[in-house]
Amino acid sequence: MPVPGPGYSITVRLEAPPSASAAGDMASAVGRVGGVITAFDVVESHNDRVIVDITCNAIGANHVTDITDALALLPGVKVRKISDRTFLIHLGGKLEIASKIPLRNRDDLSRAYTPGVARVCQAIAANPEDARRLTIKRNTVAVVTDGSAVLGLGNLGPEAALPVMEGKAVLFKKFAGVDAWPVCLDTQDTEEIIRAVELIAPVYGGINLEDIAAPRCFEIEARLREKLNIPVFHDDQHGTAIVVLAALRNALRVVGKEISDTKIAVCGVGAAGSAIIRLLLKQKPGDIIAVDVDGIVHPGREGMDPNLQWVADNTNSGQVTGSLHDALVGADVFIGVSAPNLFGAEQVATMASDAIVFALANPDPEIDPLEAQQHAAVVATGRSDYPNQINNVLAFPGVFRGLLDANAKTITDEMLVAAAGAIADVVAPERVNASFIVPSVFDTTVAPAVAEAVRKAAGSAVAG
Amino acid sequence: MPVPGPGYSITVRLEAPPSASAAGDMASAVGRVGGVITAFDVVESHNDRVIVDITCNAIGANHVTDITDALALLPGVKVRKISDRTFLIHLGGKLEIASKIPLRNRDDLSRAYTPGVARVCQAIAANPEDARRLTIKRNTVAVVTDGSAVLGLGNLGPEAALPVMEGKAVLFKKFAGVDAWPVCLDTQDTEEIIRAVELIAPVYGGINLEDIAAPRCFEIEARLREKLNIPVFHDDQHGTAIVVLAALRNALRVVGKEISDTKIAVCGVGAAGSAIIRLLLKQKPGDIIAVDVDGIVHPGREGMDPNLQWVADNTNSGQVTGSLHDALVGADVFIGVSAPNLFGAEQVATMASDAIVFALANPDPEIDPLEAQQHAAVVATGRSDYPNQINNVLAFPGVFRGLLDANAKTITDEMLVAAAGAIADVVAPERVNASFIVPSVFDTTVAPAVAEAVRKAAGSAVAG
Repeated sequence: MPVPGPGYSITVRLEAPPSASAAGDMASAVGRVGGVITAFDVVESHNDRVIVDITCNAIGANHVTDITDALALLPGVKVRKISDRTFLIHLGGKLEIASKIPLRNRDDLSRAYTPGVARVCQAIAANPEDARRLTIKRNTVAVVTDGSAVLGLGNLGPEAALPVMEGKAVLFKKFAGVDAWPVCLDTQDTEEIIRAVELIAPVYGGINLEDIAAPRCFEIEARLREKLNIPVFHDDQHGTAIVVLAALRNALRVVGKEISDTKIAVCGVGAAGSAIIRLLLKQKPGDIIAVDVDGIVHPGREGMDPNLQWVADNTNSGQVTGSLHDALVGADVFIGVSAPNLFGAEQVATMASDAIVFALANPDPEIDPLEAQQHAAVVATGRSDYPNQINNVLAFPGVFRGLLDANAKTITDEMLVAAAGAIADVVAPERVNASFIVPSVFDTTVAPAVAEAVRKAAGSAVAG
Repeated sequence: MPVPGPGYSITVRLEAPPSASAAGDMASAVGRVGGVITAFDVVESHNDRVIVDITCNAIGANHVTDITDALALLPGVKVRKISDRTFLIHLGGKLEIASKIPLRNRDDLSRAYTPGVARVCQAIAANPEDARRLTIKRNTVAVVTDGSAVLGLGNLGPEAALPVMEGKAVLFKKFAGVDAWPVCLDTQDTEEIIRAVELIAPVYGGINLEDIAAPRCFEIEARLREKLNIPVFHDDQHGTAIVVLAALRNALRVVGKEISDTKIAVCGVGAAGSAIIRLLLKQKPGDIIAVDVDGIVHPGREGMDPNLQWVADNTNSGQVTGSLHDALVGADVFIGVSAPNLFGAEQVATMASDAIVFALANPDPEIDPLEAQQHAAVVATGRSDYPNQINNVLAFPGVFRGLLDANAKTITDEMLVAAAGAIADVVAPERVNASFIVPSVFDTTVAPAVAEAVRKAAGSAVAG
């Protein structure tokens, strides 16, 4: 059941009678229909009327109508205007490009632009590696999407994906000082996406693929890794896998199990699920059972694409078949990156004792976390209104900070594992408990710790 | 003869004896070899020695060696370190990406990113035009190059072009508040460049092509104008043409001639020359004689590409043939965008009385401006160390400010002419004279005036 949140915050401007009871009546009216008031401001006050702004959190468009209808029904109250605060902060976009250098006079211009810049250009032409020293390449990441899998919303296209990419860039800058720039491509053809990223690559020190649908995303990532001499990271895959592994590490500490003894059911074998499985396999778990919309993945299943085939060949050592419910029986861990409301408390009861449930489908998880808690020892979701929010922002800023600092040409599984370890270790052993397996997304010590771990892993990769 | 300038400014750190005369000796040594000292700083002072930083302008790498050699020859002086101030300001690049919104807490995150951003994405998916309202598209321009004609340096490739594109972005922001982003493409294939720009276009409200070699640049620009619903401007063509037209308008005022009576010799028929010719033709000049490395362009000439053919068909009404020197005889105006040192005072003497000479080749003009002044009434160059600097920065920031503000889908010749008129008019009639035909590149009233003119022209284009 969704609750009013700051993601849908509106400000209603009203004209009301100047009576002592008007404010209370308005507050009651909003509360009666479930709105949560966060601010009440008198804008103007006259003998015969007051103008007030009521800011409140709502659930959705219909709920906004309920709230304004309830207000308009009050005697003497007129609704003048409804502003949506989420839309207000998006007006004109969320990013700007700033100059890092002064340009006050002719001397500044002569150095930053012509004629001085010519020598910098010639130095780079003579030694292209100097671009990492003398240009923005050193600190800049492309956030590349084709708009084919935007959040949980599906194929919205490149323009509609832009607000997400801008938000990502804001997070890159805030948490890790990385300059990230949105690249929203007007194509969903695999070859064209690969070629476009190759063509724009000279400006960037890294590529963050984002919200590109599976299975296209696998080939794009693999081919770009081969072609480019800068690291290519697909956040929906690797970012998610890192944070899941970090959370799992601490969850297993809570229940006192070793990963080598655990049976893990992974539901959803798209971008996120496949990457989670691949990274978990590096940890040599007891077993992994992968499940998708057609049931348990096993080698005998028909019509599998190369990605599913790989999963079938590398998981499910007992070659079991069946449904998600079958996969849950006896499992120590459930990791869902799939669809809402797939099972209930009765299925959790069939899992092993001290079960761990990561129900990460957004915005509605595979199982209501309150229901999961009835039988599971540790529960995590992607939501901000429950404990243990598993969110990629714990990973990607620090990962790229480390990659850029290390001048990394590629990204390795060892770096992903190191990043996961760093996130897990931000929660000191004495603070780890069933409601606190990952640090807060606002913990500013996470990104530097992740960056440090990635730098180290990159260093040993070079040394090795 | 090049002179020391701030584009080549070095700081030399020296150890010297603590004698009263040491500073004077060092200053004399630098002056003797032609260095221009701009700062003298004592960094440390000891009983037995002082450490000083001498900052001075030089001409080039050999000159820097001369300066440091002269210093090192002084008794007791040791050169410790030479820093190049132009390289210093380029370290790490000249741009950064900044967030326009706060991200202090969970509520901010819920609005700028998930879950709130989902509604903004859906609004744009439902109405793609909303991208201009709710994303950075509204204020963002791509500065696109293939690195094939970087400044006057030639084909340096995309990495080496990046410092110029960054500088351009700095100027866009400073003069017009436009967010410009470098797109340096790793291809010099016409079809690939066109397709890459199409693919990245969703994020941008305009495309500024830059330093792309002719004749490739003509097809790229023309095809992109057909394909995209945002304006496409090639600064080397249209920016140059605008500023030349502005300068010519005021120069003709100085000498009291009408453009309809003038014969104009244009030397150089690449990107800039062709665009200048096309824009001048809109003003119905008396005649234009185009000249390139093979002499005067005329319809009978062999081996012309489509661009040259068009020029031949639309200029040179008398179908004259010959060399640049022939073209100058009787010409009222010379406009050069070609190569250094092509003629001297004796050729200027063959021009019409009150001749106008725009010698714009960079860094060395077609004729030394001091020589040109012997016979010409008005002389302009692209250099900052003579009066009348004709520089594109007078045009492109204001042009894009106007295009973005007007939500322009395309750019018209009328807008270019309006921009030129606005630049010319910034110099009030009573201030126009032979040494002041264009405003300073630091005149902050230019870009707003150009923007206003372009907005108006865009408005009548829509109305018409």
